Amino acid sequence: MNFVIIGADAAGMSAASRAKRNQPDLNATVLEKTRDVSYSACGMPYNIADPGRPIEELVVRTAEVFREKQGINLLTGHEVQQVDPVNKTVAGKTLEGNEFRVPYDKLLIATGAAPIIPQLPGFTLPGVMALKSLADGRRLKKYLASNIVKTVVILGMGYIGLEMAEALHARGIDVAMVKSRPQFLPWMESSLAQAVREELDKKGVTLYPGHAVKKIEQTQNRLNVVCPDLSLNCDMVLVAVGITPNSALADQAGLDLGPGKSIAVDRRLQTSDRNIYSAGDCADAYHVVTGQKTWIPLALRANRAGWAAADNVCGETVELEGVAGTAVFKVFDLEAARTGLTTEEAASSGFTPEAVTITARSRAHAHPGSSVIHVQMVGDKKSGRLLGAQMVGRDGVAHRINAPAVALHNRMTVAAFSQADLSYAPPFGPTWDPLLTAANQLMKKM
Amino acid sequence: MNFVIIGADAAGMSAASRAKRNQPDLNATVLEKTRDVSYSACGMPYNIADPGRPIEELVVRTAEVFREKQGINLLTGHEVQQVDPVNKTVAGKTLEGNEFRVPYDKLLIATGAAPIIPQLPGFTLPGVMALKSLADGRRLKKYLASNIVKTVVILGMGYIGLEMAEALHARGIDVAMVKSRPQFLPWMESSLAQAVREELDKKGVTLYPGHAVKKIEQTQNRLNVVCPDLSLNCDMVLVAVGITPNSALADQAGLDLGPGKSIAVDRRLQTSDRNIYSAGDCADAYHVVTGQKTWIPLALRANRAGWAAADNVCGETVELEGVAGTAVFKVFDLEAARTGLTTEEAASSGFTPEAVTITARSRAHAHPGSSVIHVQMVGDKKSGRLLGAQMVGRDGVAHRINAPAVALHNRMTVAAFSQADLSYAPPFGPTWDPLLTAANQLMKKM
Repeated sequence: MNFVIIGADAAGMSAASRAKRNQPDLNATVLEKTRDVSYSACGMPYNIADPGRPIEELVVRTAEVFREKQGINLLTGHEVQQVDPVNKTVAGKTLEGNEFRVPYDKLLIATGAAPIIPQLPGFTLPGVMALKSLADGRRLKKYLASNIVKTVVILGMGYIGLEMAEALHARGIDVAMVKSRPQFLPWMESSLAQAVREELDKKGVTLYPGHAVKKIEQTQNRLNVVCPDLSLNCDMVLVAVGITPNSALADQAGLDLGPGKSIAVDRRLQTSDRNIYSAGDCADAYHVVTGQKTWIPLALRANRAGWAAADNVCGETVELEGVAGTAVFKVFDLEAARTGLTTEEAASSGFTPEAVTITARSRAHAHPGSSVIHVQMVGDKKSGRLLGAQMVGRDGVAHRINAPAVALHNRMTVAAFSQADLSYAPPFGPTWDPLLTAANQLMKKM
Repeated sequence: MNFVIIGADAAGMSAASRAKRNQPDLNATVLEKTRDVSYSACGMPYNIADPGRPIEELVVRTAEVFREKQGINLLTGHEVQQVDPVNKTVAGKTLEGNEFRVPYDKLLIATGAAPIIPQLPGFTLPGVMALKSLADGRRLKKYLASNIVKTVVILGMGYIGLEMAEALHARGIDVAMVKSRPQFLPWMESSLAQAVREELDKKGVTLYPGHAVKKIEQTQNRLNVVCPDLSLNCDMVLVAVGITPNSALADQAGLDLGPGKSIAVDRRLQTSDRNIYSAGDCADAYHVVTGQKTWIPLALRANRAGWAAADNVCGETVELEGVAGTAVFKVFDLEAARTGLTTEEAASSGFTPEAVTITARSRAHAHPGSSVIHVQMVGDKKSGRLLGAQMVGRDGVAHRINAPAVALHNRMTVAAFSQADLSYAPPFGPTWDPLLTAANQLMKKM
């Protein structure tokens, strides 16, 4: 069987490796338009923070290992430009300009996502960067090494923007962040968002929400970010206003699209063409809380979906239940995490949300090193179900969020979750974990 | 209504406070044999570690607050010596020698547990300590302050012994630990137990498992711990060989007892007498994995059971599902945690256990500060259910264990747990959390 995979990052290489493990005699061909394969894109901000770490450290496994140890036909520099579902072939051009055409029995589209670059003047200037691919990271790191960069303007205040604010700050660079919408972190409960904002303030990161960039100008050796009522001088601009799924190939091939123009897949990762699968940042998923389709491009899902697609290609039946929307990010000394739905998402999904926000301590009464932890918890007044949780704190947030995440997979009620036997020892939490305190409070309102 | 509570620590005072909040006109009388109320017993090792912290810092709420702000009739120095279920009275003696008799409509026995002190020569010598009550902690801390203590022998290698080894080490004291059974941490998977043992070795704590103490002797200003083939000189002995429920009152009153002679209660915390409830370290609980009775005396359960008993006394119907046996302890720089059943417990509960032990990294590939994390996971081969997990590591173990704990409450299969959408960011874990790696491995064996 010819199993052809477009894209050689998390989902694509997980699928190729898994398929070869499942069926060593299967032909697995991976077509990757760049020269980079299998790297930890999420690790880029932390790598960039340290000038001494080569960016290549982020490569999890090299192309040679995939080819020689795993027997995968991995072709880099091969850009697929067309998928023909009728004749079951993919066609494209190599970086050297040679045309190629490859037949498939089963195809996996794992083309990922691309940063959104506004079509405005100045966004192609040399000091204007994005950060999604390893090539982006390499270019950005090289720019920092070979230019005097004292001030950076980050456009956007999402995960990548926030992580990069910390990374650049660690290199002694002044950071300002600009976004067009007025709310700092619109998905986060306001007091939690405020805690994140205060952390950025404390570290000297200047935030300009509510400022729509109109252009970027070159002024001698510097750049000028121009908004209607604001103009910021800097040495580099990072564009981190969002990402969009690379679904053009799938769209041209007539495949159904899902939320945000992601590629629509079922629980087996099958697209609307039964010989074509899709996985990773380009594909949608079911949300375990709503049961509806969603597009939440994150690394764990990409890896898991790559495996599951390969298993299904190899004749097993593997169905993925879906995502809970669990995510965590670090901003300086703060950890911020979420799982499930926000109040607004819950309301627009047809629930009757009720929410509480509490503050608790990260460790036991009187225990040294204890700090404030903020928790917001959302439940459904009608069914009693837990719908989501958000947390911000300095201590133990990243893994705490997984308890409500597992609860969401099980459609637990807030009352049932409040009875969970969570761990307790004074160095790690109060007797009632902040999540249980939130659940106890929320129960009173439901 | 007269609601009488025996015992003024976690379960007792939680119940009294909750009952008064539920029904402000209820008479809540708490009879406590000592002078101490509502303190964090679990915090004692950490308090003892620091000579500068007064032990009274561990008092969560003082007797005055309970009396004056909450209207609770809190009588300290009142030891109940008899419960009369026929006439619905309790009787006893005060520390001053006065007899008392109190009628009740509903009674809560929250008498806690007591350290096991072997009936062997020398165990009542002045330098021989236990650590369960605040009085124990006060006595121990005073002993350390007023004597030259350079070497301590700890009898027992349970949570308290291990936490105290760290606490005493922090004060510059040499620690040796002795236990009669040959296995260091018998409930822990051997490679995980070995990791804990190595941490103790590294810190210079000497372990003598397989040595049964026969007596403790006074030798001039020092103590001598005598085993058949070992004799250890020291300045203080801490007896931490285990605890036993304070169930004698209940037993004498004819109430049914459960595992380990704990007081048997149903899901509403009702004993075999429908007017008598029990909660806290003296009472048993249902185990959510086995559905059977168990005795796992821990602080969260005590607080939760105190609340639930009060709610039931006040006419609500509150049923506690039970405990998952989730626990965590810190040993120097290591965190060790468990939830659910060990392989042995699973086998003796009628399951067909299958287990894997894996090592993974606590943070992402190439991320600074990453360390080893050990995970053991146990499943049931017949039903596919997840039965338990254990973890040891330096980073993020304490809260990670809560994800499988919530899974146990939901009777999740290992396969379903392996699909959980857990959080990921490079500073906090690899893309596949160590728990998911363990679940993926375990699935292959099931």
